[in-house]
Amino acid sequence: MRILPTKMFDLKEYLNKQRRMIDAALDRFLESASPTRIIEAMRYAVMSGGKRLRPVLCLAGCEAVGGDPNRAMPVACALEMIHTYSLIHDDLPAMDDDNLRRGRPTCHIAFDEATAILAGDALLTLAFTVLSSRSFRADVPTGDCLEIISMISSSAGYQGMVEGQMRDMLAERSAEPLPVADLEILHSLKTGALIQASVCSGAWVGQGSPDAVASLKIYSQKIGLAFQVADDILNVEGDPAIMGKQVGTDRDRSKMTYPSLIGLAESKAVASRLISEAIAALESFDHRADPLRAIAEYIIHRKR
Amino acid sequence: MRILPTKMFDLKEYLNKQRRMIDAALDRFLESASPTRIIEAMRYAVMSGGKRLRPVLCLAGCEAVGGDPNRAMPVACALEMIHTYSLIHDDLPAMDDDNLRRGRPTCHIAFDEATAILAGDALLTLAFTVLSSRSFRADVPTGDCLEIISMISSSAGYQGMVEGQMRDMLAERSAEPLPVADLEILHSLKTGALIQASVCSGAWVGQGSPDAVASLKIYSQKIGLAFQVADDILNVEGDPAIMGKQVGTDRDRSKMTYPSLIGLAESKAVASRLISEAIAALESFDHRADPLRAIAEYIIHRKR
Repeated sequence: MRILPTKMFDLKEYLNKQRRMIDAALDRFLESASPTRIIEAMRYAVMSGGKRLRPVLCLAGCEAVGGDPNRAMPVACALEMIHTYSLIHDDLPAMDDDNLRRGRPTCHIAFDEATAILAGDALLTLAFTVLSSRSFRADVPTGDCLEIISMISSSAGYQGMVEGQMRDMLAERSAEPLPVADLEILHSLKTGALIQASVCSGAWVGQGSPDAVASLKIYSQKIGLAFQVADDILNVEGDPAIMGKQVGTDRDRSKMTYPSLIGLAESKAVASRLISEAIAALESFDHRADPLRAIAEYIIHRKR
Repeated sequence: MRILPTKMFDLKEYLNKQRRMIDAALDRFLESASPTRIIEAMRYAVMSGGKRLRPVLCLAGCEAVGGDPNRAMPVACALEMIHTYSLIHDDLPAMDDDNLRRGRPTCHIAFDEATAILAGDALLTLAFTVLSSRSFRADVPTGDCLEIISMISSSAGYQGMVEGQMRDMLAERSAEPLPVADLEILHSLKTGALIQASVCSGAWVGQGSPDAVASLKIYSQKIGLAFQVADDILNVEGDPAIMGKQVGTDRDRSKMTYPSLIGLAESKAVASRLISEAIAALESFDHRADPLRAIAEYIIHRKR
């Protein structure tokens, strides 16, 4: 039996602590003495008890290379803003047309479509205000700030997340089943790219060596894909009460998923293999990468 | 009779030359060997013969402080990407629901709503990839790149353009007429903020002094507002064949405009006054600010 290197690490406590810190920082970035309708919609979408996976990964990536995770907090928050904007827009009637997210009405239901579109736009824009802010620049060399902006914007744009969502929409409209290889590319764009940017931008703040960043790239590619496979599995056999959203929706929409293409058992095997490979990529890292190791395990064992 | 300082300056030739350069640069940024649907939609919206006012102002702002406008070209293109994204999203059915833009079907008509939302998102994101690119950094000190990203993202976000569009939507839905002072704030947010960022980011690339930038701020506030007043006037008495879009639409929608609130004659007087004040703000600048002076005049005499 393989002894997991993460056995001694209390992930639950770690995640709770990190999420509290991230939530507090997000709250500060979205603070306003007289909140406008846009700010209210932004806050509604952001402060909704999400998993905060991307910011947690960013802070853990910084820690893994020996950096001070506090300095990566603005990056962590910017990543969550970008993730939240993508959820708001994906939920719109013209896109996935979802009414429920994290157990609450989606932004366009709670407000209206125009406000939701604009709140998404504003969150995406605010991410770059945060990444170019004087307080962030005070902690991180200006050249590194620009590298991080470049990394994050590339992964979020037409060569990353946006392209992934477009492919997802096209696949859903198509009558043809998608080859598994194409599904893998779709996910590597739709969720993988920003997850990779999360880990690597954290490592960048922590002044990680090129070798360390290369290893973290492999780690994040593996967990990014595993995350999506696990999401597909949860949509089949998850508990809607825990998840805060409906299950079975992929099947109802005839959506291409791992379970629908390769079956549930094989999907679970794939997810497990990916997590083992992710942890193997961290071989040269010391105990400071324990959070990353534990998060990898969590990704396929989570209930929501 | 006042002798215009711009009499010797051939604005038409200048604008044609600048637009050709800007169009070529935008074309390069959106080049792709195998364009995806998203890239096609981005190109469709961007390469549509717009006035390129914001990029022209950016290059002219750089020139006015003695800088090399070529170095400001990435900023000019990023500004046009952000402007175009805002047009794509504003035209959506949930927002202004416009079918025609620059004489052609709007993006969501030519493609579909989901593609239009994503193409807008991708253009906004690409703007920041351009502003953090290595080629831009090669020409401009990294600290200045970050200042420019900060300036542009702030002016485009929830404290600028997005808030302006939200106020515009709320005003349109409201039965109450808007006080002129509130209409002025609305426009200073919706169009003024990004126009100001255009001129000032150009001046920043050109290493303009704090005094010069302060003067250019006043200049751009004045022309930004004049631009909107002129737009409102064109919507009343413009030629749809020249403008490439319908006129009279503001009245049909009972939209708050300068002509509807203070009348056509008074609106023209306000626009003229603003332009005089804009040109006065350039008093300490030499002939290199002639393009900015001529653009100010053009803003209220343009036909589209």
